[in-house]
Amino acid sequence: MSKDNPAAPEQDDAAYDIVGIGNAIVDVLSKTAEDFLKVNKIHKGTMTLIEAEQADELYSKMGPGMEMSGGSAANTVAAFAGMGGRAGYIGKVSNDQLGKVFRHDISAVGVSFDTPPLEDGPSTARCLILITPDAQRTMCTYLGACVWIAPSDLNAEMIKSAKVTYLEGYLFDRDRAKQTFRKACEIASGAGRKVSLTLSDPFCVDRHRDDFLDLINDGVDIVFANEAEIFKLYETEDMNNIIHNLRESCETGVITRSDKGSLIVTPTEVVEVAAEPVAEVVDTTGAGDMYAAGFLYGYTRGKSAAECGRLGSIAAAEIISHVGARPQANLQELLKAKKAV
Amino acid sequence: MSKDNPAAPEQDDAAYDIVGIGNAIVDVLSKTAEDFLKVNKIHKGTMTLIEAEQADELYSKMGPGMEMSGGSAANTVAAFAGMGGRAGYIGKVSNDQLGKVFRHDISAVGVSFDTPPLEDGPSTARCLILITPDAQRTMCTYLGACVWIAPSDLNAEMIKSAKVTYLEGYLFDRDRAKQTFRKACEIASGAGRKVSLTLSDPFCVDRHRDDFLDLINDGVDIVFANEAEIFKLYETEDMNNIIHNLRESCETGVITRSDKGSLIVTPTEVVEVAAEPVAEVVDTTGAGDMYAAGFLYGYTRGKSAAECGRLGSIAAAEIISHVGARPQANLQELLKAKKAV
Repeated sequence: MSKDNPAAPEQDDAAYDIVGIGNAIVDVLSKTAEDFLKVNKIHKGTMTLIEAEQADELYSKMGPGMEMSGGSAANTVAAFAGMGGRAGYIGKVSNDQLGKVFRHDISAVGVSFDTPPLEDGPSTARCLILITPDAQRTMCTYLGACVWIAPSDLNAEMIKSAKVTYLEGYLFDRDRAKQTFRKACEIASGAGRKVSLTLSDPFCVDRHRDDFLDLINDGVDIVFANEAEIFKLYETEDMNNIIHNLRESCETGVITRSDKGSLIVTPTEVVEVAAEPVAEVVDTTGAGDMYAAGFLYGYTRGKSAAECGRLGSIAAAEIISHVGARPQANLQELLKAKKAV
Repeated sequence: MSKDNPAAPEQDDAAYDIVGIGNAIVDVLSKTAEDFLKVNKIHKGTMTLIEAEQADELYSKMGPGMEMSGGSAANTVAAFAGMGGRAGYIGKVSNDQLGKVFRHDISAVGVSFDTPPLEDGPSTARCLILITPDAQRTMCTYLGACVWIAPSDLNAEMIKSAKVTYLEGYLFDRDRAKQTFRKACEIASGAGRKVSLTLSDPFCVDRHRDDFLDLINDGVDIVFANEAEIFKLYETEDMNNIIHNLRESCETGVITRSDKGSLIVTPTEVVEVAAEPVAEVVDTTGAGDMYAAGFLYGYTRGKSAAECGRLGSIAAAEIISHVGARPQANLQELLKAKKAV
């Protein structure tokens, strides 16, 4: 925000606007009847971690799929680059066909990605995404090569030269990834850069609440969460309480609320941003990732909280209007057409 | 056609309505500017065969992609099964991730597919599909494992028990596949079944004109072609001439003409079928494959030429309204809603 964070836009020595660190995943998207979730006891709207055998079993029951690169932070940096920003990515794929697909797709939009692939280990991660007729997405993730990401995979120079290091909470689900996460925070903070975190999933928050709270208090500047996640984090649904907690622990808190828009909490204001209208919601996969991309695009350019929120809303509206978590529209042109940049 | 082909619907000993034989391919679909085709000297609207190195080079230049199972005859049988028909498939994938994706997607819609995968050979075929802003698709195919299909891969029992064996002309591009193709025709004809052929691509017809003409004269009952392909086959654009040639050599000739609909040539009539209206043409990939699926669905149920053509047009309209060559709608419900079945 221009008022509360005058430093960000002036960090002109930065080679990157953001670097994202997360689970490098290829999505397998499939339209599914509601019943399929019930029969297979899958909790709608959430992300469940599954092992290789479970992934094979679920896949064998699923309908035909569509493969697209995914991964929460990867979606964010891909969209960020599509807006015209300078983005890098750190994440672990395997040296297999899906790993090459992931590398191609993120590189093709101009994101720097040089994490070496895993050789002779588990396959590239897959996220089986079941899209119900109400456009909700339910995810089952086999982490595969992702869990092999290690502190040695961090490109410290990239992190030091990025205005914002953006981390996904999903990394907390495995110890080696969590160490990598903490190390990245240290490098970024040590270089005087901003650290941003998305809470990723309410169950993920439940699993790692204390760790998340410590991290947010210690080194995170910008927190992204949807309502379910922020309620879980602070174990309250009282918004005044939540706003107070966010202000105590970080510079900016952003709460996304689906069609109700978003709420941006800064030290001096609470800004309500409306959701961007959408003709038809087709698939909500990636909505949070896109919002973060738009928000941070504005943030790294010194825009106001309201402007950052609007950029996030426009990007989110694009992604939910089609299947898949990577943008199909030219985001740079879209933002211009909406007079948002 | 009920009048001209009274045998088809009465072959009730048939375990399958159709078995498709073709190149088993995973598509990589990517939206592209017109300029990209020019710069890379790719002939718009056609299919070009490329080797592994060319595929890697082209892929590295392409934008982000979306992977979906494809392959002309495979698209047709997948859609056929989606309409409620009984379909089998014969084609060669490799024992790799994309091969597993192909097998999953075709099996998930209920198509029988038991061709053993290639072990330790080239990778599963990929078709790089460039979609220009006018919704045209331009394809560059790396055949990989496909060219290893051999007569020994033919499931003779499946072919003998299918009312129609459906073959794609693309198989003619490699000798081993061509032998397999001929062998399949022999098995089907020998069992008193129908053989259907799609000409696939005008350049493919150019490359193999004499072979195609021999085959159509010898053993093919139903030919599918678009205008460019049939013009190339008979080296004329005179429709009376073409109709005469088709009647001389096969039972039914079907000529698809994009938004102008289709023309069905039987021994006794020439039926014009209108194209089904589409709100927005997004991607024409698979339009011909879908038309064939709808047409043959009607054909194997003894419908009239006009009814078969309408079923084809409805299926084609579904596929061009979204990206990718496999249906997203429930075709069975769609055909019912349109009162076409």
